[in-house]
Amino acid sequence: FKCVLAFVMCSQIPSGLPQPSGENPDPPQTVNVVVMVPFEGEYLFRRDVIQPGVEYALRTLRRNDGPLTRDLQFNVTYRNSQCNRKAALEAVDFYYGQCGTSDVTNSMTSPLLFLGPVCNDATSMVATFAGKWNVPVISPGSHAAWIIPGEEYPMLTRITPSYIDLAYFIHNVFVMLNHGVTYPVHLIYEDREEDSECHNLMQAVYSVFHNDAVVLQVTTRHAISDVTFHAESFIADIGYPNVVLMCASSPLVRKVMLAASAHGVAVPGRNEWYAIDLHNDSYYAAGAWKQGDEQDLKAKIAYRALQVITFIVTKTPEFNRFSTTILNEYRSRGVTHSETQQVNEYVEGFHDAIMLYARALNATMNQGLDIRNGTSVSANMRNITFQGISGPVTIDLYGDRNGDYSIIGMKNIETGTFEKVIDYYG
Amino acid sequence: FKCVLAFVMCSQIPSGLPQPSGENPDPPQTVNVVVMVPFEGEYLFRRDVIQPGVEYALRTLRRNDGPLTRDLQFNVTYRNSQCNRKAALEAVDFYYGQCGTSDVTNSMTSPLLFLGPVCNDATSMVATFAGKWNVPVISPGSHAAWIIPGEEYPMLTRITPSYIDLAYFIHNVFVMLNHGVTYPVHLIYEDREEDSECHNLMQAVYSVFHNDAVVLQVTTRHAISDVTFHAESFIADIGYPNVVLMCASSPLVRKVMLAASAHGVAVPGRNEWYAIDLHNDSYYAAGAWKQGDEQDLKAKIAYRALQVITFIVTKTPEFNRFSTTILNEYRSRGVTHSETQQVNEYVEGFHDAIMLYARALNATMNQGLDIRNGTSVSANMRNITFQGISGPVTIDLYGDRNGDYSIIGMKNIETGTFEKVIDYYG
Repeated sequence: FKCVLAFVMCSQIPSGLPQPSGENPDPPQTVNVVVMVPFEGEYLFRRDVIQPGVEYALRTLRRNDGPLTRDLQFNVTYRNSQCNRKAALEAVDFYYGQCGTSDVTNSMTSPLLFLGPVCNDATSMVATFAGKWNVPVISPGSHAAWIIPGEEYPMLTRITPSYIDLAYFIHNVFVMLNHGVTYPVHLIYEDREEDSECHNLMQAVYSVFHNDAVVLQVTTRHAISDVTFHAESFIADIGYPNVVLMCASSPLVRKVMLAASAHGVAVPGRNEWYAIDLHNDSYYAAGAWKQGDEQDLKAKIAYRALQVITFIVTKTPEFNRFSTTILNEYRSRGVTHSETQQVNEYVEGFHDAIMLYARALNATMNQGLDIRNGTSVSANMRNITFQGISGPVTIDLYGDRNGDYSIIGMKNIETGTFEKVIDYYG
Repeated sequence: FKCVLAFVMCSQIPSGLPQPSGENPDPPQTVNVVVMVPFEGEYLFRRDVIQPGVEYALRTLRRNDGPLTRDLQFNVTYRNSQCNRKAALEAVDFYYGQCGTSDVTNSMTSPLLFLGPVCNDATSMVATFAGKWNVPVISPGSHAAWIIPGEEYPMLTRITPSYIDLAYFIHNVFVMLNHGVTYPVHLIYEDREEDSECHNLMQAVYSVFHNDAVVLQVTTRHAISDVTFHAESFIADIGYPNVVLMCASSPLVRKVMLAASAHGVAVPGRNEWYAIDLHNDSYYAAGAWKQGDEQDLKAKIAYRALQVITFIVTKTPEFNRFSTTILNEYRSRGVTHSETQQVNEYVEGFHDAIMLYARALNATMNQGLDIRNGTSVSANMRNITFQGISGPVTIDLYGDRNGDYSIIGMKNIETGTFEKVIDYYG
């Protein structure tokens, strides 16, 4: 008889986890979390970089004053997402991998949460399967405009703001700062590969601006690259007056600003030149006029006309503790990470994702619902604000993070330092 | 004991089918084929359209003089590919769906072949899983340049020519007909959606031409659409002399040719205007100057300068029998299909895929290898020529079909009919 039972359990797994049957289901004691990140490569969210953040969060959960009100054991497995569609192989392997072994009577070998992937193609596939399996996915990435939580990916929650969210902020700023003057808006991005961050961001900006063509005329996007780019002819081409929004590495932004300044079209106070700094790191570092060459002085003057759009980074005491701990872990484990020696936003995202999930588990159990039902748990991750490691995190009705953004500009023209012009809390 | 055995078999399925262990393995009697096509929508390869072609092929296999030399039972299952990434859900469901039931001791519930999908995203995912499972995939589609059989998709064979194959043909023709004159080549395509046939084709053409920039200068691609397209300014923009390659619906091709003729740049005999007819059907029908309006005469004159690149369709007696049978099936089953009342190339592709697979099964068994080993079977589908329903089909070393193409032009300027200028057998 036991054998027959085992068969039945096994055959049930492919058709979805057991649904809650009535009130007060017996909650499982073990929560299987599958963390999906690349194990190798130059990723800010590579396994060894984000793992200390995950472990920090799990330690917080085990504290007496932690967010988890009941005793649940978190069982975390790392699987290699490879940052591409092959992440689906790993997710399927984990989901079905136990089928047929003697473990199948313990349904807790099933995943209750996918944490990650971060890359768009990987998330698209894992969230597609997770939607069928009724398992939540929290991604600290997957920012592309074509990934839309809700109908297409019902189990997906994004713990960091999408590019569409950022695009709406930029749109609002342009409408506000330019007083409704309908200059053409040029979108300029460094296009090194099809799926690059700047490419995806500009697609989002284009779609948001395009839907509001009455107020701002967005031009076709300009893809530029460091190899082919001739700043002089480019500035002549785009015409004047206009608004220029750039997403590019800091040397390329500097080239554009130097050319604009030489053509007399970089005028401070006219709100015409913008660059996006996606990571507060040295790659984009759009405010970095200083490169230590003979053009530094010219660049400093040119950058008076530039404003930089970036994410708000709040340095709370809690974040400083987190940051110190993570950086210590990096040192003791020999992790090579971002050159800025800061804890990056993905580490923060993975940490906050676990906090969000723990809160949702509490809420689900308090509602008398089964935490194995991803729909119930996901519903408790929507339309809420909670305390993340660096401040309040708001997730909207559809499972998308509301972003907090800053615009910085050169406030001190002597020193050339960039300081806040606008802070916006989404 | 029987129960334990069942468990063991079940747990083996996720880690791959049993590999051949030594010589002369006992061949299975049942071959499970999963046909993956959309069940609904305006697809030329919708289930009800291609199913008669599959059944025709299976009847041929059962004939005494058929290509199968041993008695194998084909068990064909249709699964809805939805023409998108969700095809992976169906493939995984089929593969793991039997796990845990009493059927698991019969490993022949496992798929031995995926026939389809046709759509790029669907094939990409199914072939990714099939690569892990060691199951061949034969696709009568998946033509996009980014899908490359071999390393990335080791189990994939394409039974119809890829766009890269067509692009190489076009490149060779341009080099040959234009005698090495380095005019700019303008790629003009109707871009109604991101993943449209013309979009994907032009990406392939661009990449092939771009790799050979010495001989032909390819310009940036021009995306046009029927809504925004102003033929007059367009012709003025592209300059002269040049070579223009179009992939667009027949009314749009006609608009361009009328404008070119009015500007005096449509000169017969100069080999400058080309259109691609992807289906020999009325949608592209690039040779169709006649639309029954007052511009027919002007269009007939303009089309003297146009050459049309298309696929060779051979009307063998065997193909005529096939075609008659399929069209009868459509009538008796009430299938609505291509408006031209012809059997389309996907129906032919699904048929030929089964012929190719049957030949490969024979060869694999004759080699004393296990037909459950997809690598062995796939190897027997490479580097061969066999008789398809409308003539010889050649698959190259990597699993890609070599295409046969025609260029047609207006040979009779009185009647305005298009006839063959070049036939090319790949």
